[in-house]
Amino acid sequence: MSTASPEKQMLLLTRCCSFLKALPQRLAAKAFEIAASTKKLAQDDPRRVTHSAKVGVALSLVSLVYYYQPLYVNFGVSAMWAVVTVVVVFEFSVGATLGKGLNRGLATLLAGALGVGAHHLASLCGQIGEPILLGIFVFLQATTSTFVRFFPKIKARYDYGLLIFILTFSLISVSGFRDDEILELAHKRLSTIIIGASACVIISILICPVWAGEDLHNLIALNMEKLANFLEGFGGEYFKTSEDGEGNDHHDKLFLKEYKNVLNSKSTEESLANFASWEPCHGQFQFRHPWKQYLQIGALTRECAYRIDALSSYLNSDVQASPEIRSKIQEACTEMSLECGKALKELSSAVRTMSQQSSADRHVSNSKAAAGNLESVLRSGLFEDADDLLAVIPAATVASLLIDVVGCTERIRDAVNELASVANFESVKPKAVLPEQSLLEDVKPVSEIECPHVVVRVGGPTSGSPENYTRRPEPLTGNKQAEM
Amino acid sequence: MSTASPEKQMLLLTRCCSFLKALPQRLAAKAFEIAASTKKLAQDDPRRVTHSAKVGVALSLVSLVYYYQPLYVNFGVSAMWAVVTVVVVFEFSVGATLGKGLNRGLATLLAGALGVGAHHLASLCGQIGEPILLGIFVFLQATTSTFVRFFPKIKARYDYGLLIFILTFSLISVSGFRDDEILELAHKRLSTIIIGASACVIISILICPVWAGEDLHNLIALNMEKLANFLEGFGGEYFKTSEDGEGNDHHDKLFLKEYKNVLNSKSTEESLANFASWEPCHGQFQFRHPWKQYLQIGALTRECAYRIDALSSYLNSDVQASPEIRSKIQEACTEMSLECGKALKELSSAVRTMSQQSSADRHVSNSKAAAGNLESVLRSGLFEDADDLLAVIPAATVASLLIDVVGCTERIRDAVNELASVANFESVKPKAVLPEQSLLEDVKPVSEIECPHVVVRVGGPTSGSPENYTRRPEPLTGNKQAEM
Repeated sequence: MSTASPEKQMLLLTRCCSFLKALPQRLAAKAFEIAASTKKLAQDDPRRVTHSAKVGVALSLVSLVYYYQPLYVNFGVSAMWAVVTVVVVFEFSVGATLGKGLNRGLATLLAGALGVGAHHLASLCGQIGEPILLGIFVFLQATTSTFVRFFPKIKARYDYGLLIFILTFSLISVSGFRDDEILELAHKRLSTIIIGASACVIISILICPVWAGEDLHNLIALNMEKLANFLEGFGGEYFKTSEDGEGNDHHDKLFLKEYKNVLNSKSTEESLANFASWEPCHGQFQFRHPWKQYLQIGALTRECAYRIDALSSYLNSDVQASPEIRSKIQEACTEMSLECGKALKELSSAVRTMSQQSSADRHVSNSKAAAGNLESVLRSGLFEDADDLLAVIPAATVASLLIDVVGCTERIRDAVNELASVANFESVKPKAVLPEQSLLEDVKPVSEIECPHVVVRVGGPTSGSPENYTRRPEPLTGNKQAEM
Repeated sequence: MSTASPEKQMLLLTRCCSFLKALPQRLAAKAFEIAASTKKLAQDDPRRVTHSAKVGVALSLVSLVYYYQPLYVNFGVSAMWAVVTVVVVFEFSVGATLGKGLNRGLATLLAGALGVGAHHLASLCGQIGEPILLGIFVFLQATTSTFVRFFPKIKARYDYGLLIFILTFSLISVSGFRDDEILELAHKRLSTIIIGASACVIISILICPVWAGEDLHNLIALNMEKLANFLEGFGGEYFKTSEDGEGNDHHDKLFLKEYKNVLNSKSTEESLANFASWEPCHGQFQFRHPWKQYLQIGALTRECAYRIDALSSYLNSDVQASPEIRSKIQEACTEMSLECGKALKELSSAVRTMSQQSSADRHVSNSKAAAGNLESVLRSGLFEDADDLLAVIPAATVASLLIDVVGCTERIRDAVNELASVANFESVKPKAVLPEQSLLEDVKPVSEIECPHVVVRVGGPTSGSPENYTRRPEPLTGNKQAEM
């Protein structure tokens, strides 16, 4: 509306100048930032670089269909479907690529056949009836298939196949209205898709393969290890607090934060297990490796992580038990936490090396024994001098959560043992055991190591029958409910 | 090797007969099962049926390009891209459809232009050099774009765009080797894609639109309500146990299990927030509605759910505190749990109705006051007659976890208040308030209702300065770490 005053114009000009002057610097900073994050992304998982190059190779190879005269004569414009297939089907892991490739190939075959049938049926209805009937077919087919995609089980494994089913049926039946060589069209589409998908699968398997199953296997082991790291460090951190006073700073310690990734690992685990089920046998894994059992271990690990999340809030909390009380439970709690951590680490390495390790059983027994010790400490009435019960509560909660963690660890051990028996883990694998570990290893069978007499007793004297004292592992079906 | 004996053959035959006899029954049972699950799927969310029909309508409409002569003359075989676009782009929610449509359109435009450029550049290199240079271009482009897809931020929003970028660039530059009318090809591909994408977006918005933003909004409110239901029922369930003895059965109660869905809601919330950010303004939501704030509320709700998961293990645990002790903390704990539940229910309805409700503040204050009462109960030394401290531990843990839940509830309240101020929730919305609720509502401003003097004190007498007694809400940055 009103023109700016000369001062304002001057100011605007100066700002523009300073902005332009700073621009190269800012751009350089931004470029540096992008370069740094690119480098980090590549270093975090070098397979990303390989995968990118593999996609490039596959795409260049498939383009040969265009460049090489004899091939082009065969397929013509349909050669483009090979290019499309490579771009769409090539996924990071072999399992995902195979799953998508098979889905795409089979769906094209099926939908192509149905599309040709629909076209023939419609062409019987004359010039006017044909487009109407075709429209009705397309509508019905698309509506039904889209609805079927909502079934959870089908969505997990065949979602892409149904998408391609809708696509191919519509393309073939509708194109047929204009193109009389509909059979040839369907045939060309199918063969180019097979060429593209085969190129993807072959390159994906032959050049630095990324197996989803292996990733799942390592993820499950890693998640257990993260919890183990927390538990091994927890005792020291929690009981250090009281001695060092307010100067404690847990925020820098990585092992106290790592476990947070475990809390939200469900969707990653499920998709990896889905991809893994498409994969052929590879490395140590058979064709029908029990991937579902990994999901069960993952669910139990997550349950344990929830308890650990509750525990961790007592590390950083301003509310702390008095030092005397903490010093009384220190030994038993540190022992419980440490032994659970060791057990989880053993289980993690058992899964990682696919060997049956009996030392995890001993650590679980030790942690249960420590829980028993805690009980006797509490029972011995050492607390009677604590005139304020309030001061006991944070310590009691930590102890109780740790007892929960012991229960979780035991259930994880059972799940890992089940996996070991279903997947035929080797019973002894001396190579994978480090010298100091092998010293700890003794020759007693598991049943002897485990002390069935040590039960976790934290119930009150009024709890009734002795069975009530034992903290029974929850039935595994209850765990499935957690996964709904 | 050896022929079976006549008895065995007879047995086999009998079995075959009985199998064939039972077959119709089995098939009927299977069909009935499928019909039942289909009906349930449709009843659970009737929008699924509408969505399926919408896809059918869009596909039939786009097929018109083939049937209607003037349109077909323009596009020819390229009309198929419109069909492909509809099948691939049409997603359940408006946001996802819009996001995919925009990604596809823009990526095609950009990659088409680059592909035409690459083709011209390559054609300068003569008959032999052209395919080699094109191959190099395709390889470089595919490798770079595939790697860029690994950047988490880009993956979240532009993954599909990059896929289409690779696809179109390869198609245009490679097809150009055979087809001289490359500009026309690029132009046709772009216009048919625009036709397909527009059909999807228009039908998706006009016919029974499914807004991802609305879904996220409702999901966040629902999750809070699920936790509220648990907390409102928890007191009664936990303290009922001791009176009814061993006959208690919590397994049938829905409200004690519902919260488990909240534990794993992260990925759903994130994808809904991503879709919502593509959506135009609709209903009560502005164009730049603060969807990220919903994610923060969701993260805090999940943190609270982790505590509730720890709490719930004390419901079904065989280890229970003695009835005397439980009866002593019963009043305060039930009050805390109930008030937290009420507060969460108020917050949930505040989010749902997009109104600022002050009664949540009162419930939070009440729950903090109840925590204070618990403190004085504990301080009053009522426990001195409990000769066994062990009997106290489960009760103390429940109390402590409930105090944690109070803290979580307070943080959720703060996050909801922040959302209310950022998204300009209406301060009073009398219509949405039920009669009995409006009776509870009083006219005091929030600052008066809140009692800043009631702080949760559970620290021991040695904890030092009075500030240490207050359970400070954790900084929100700490919460972000939980989301890494």
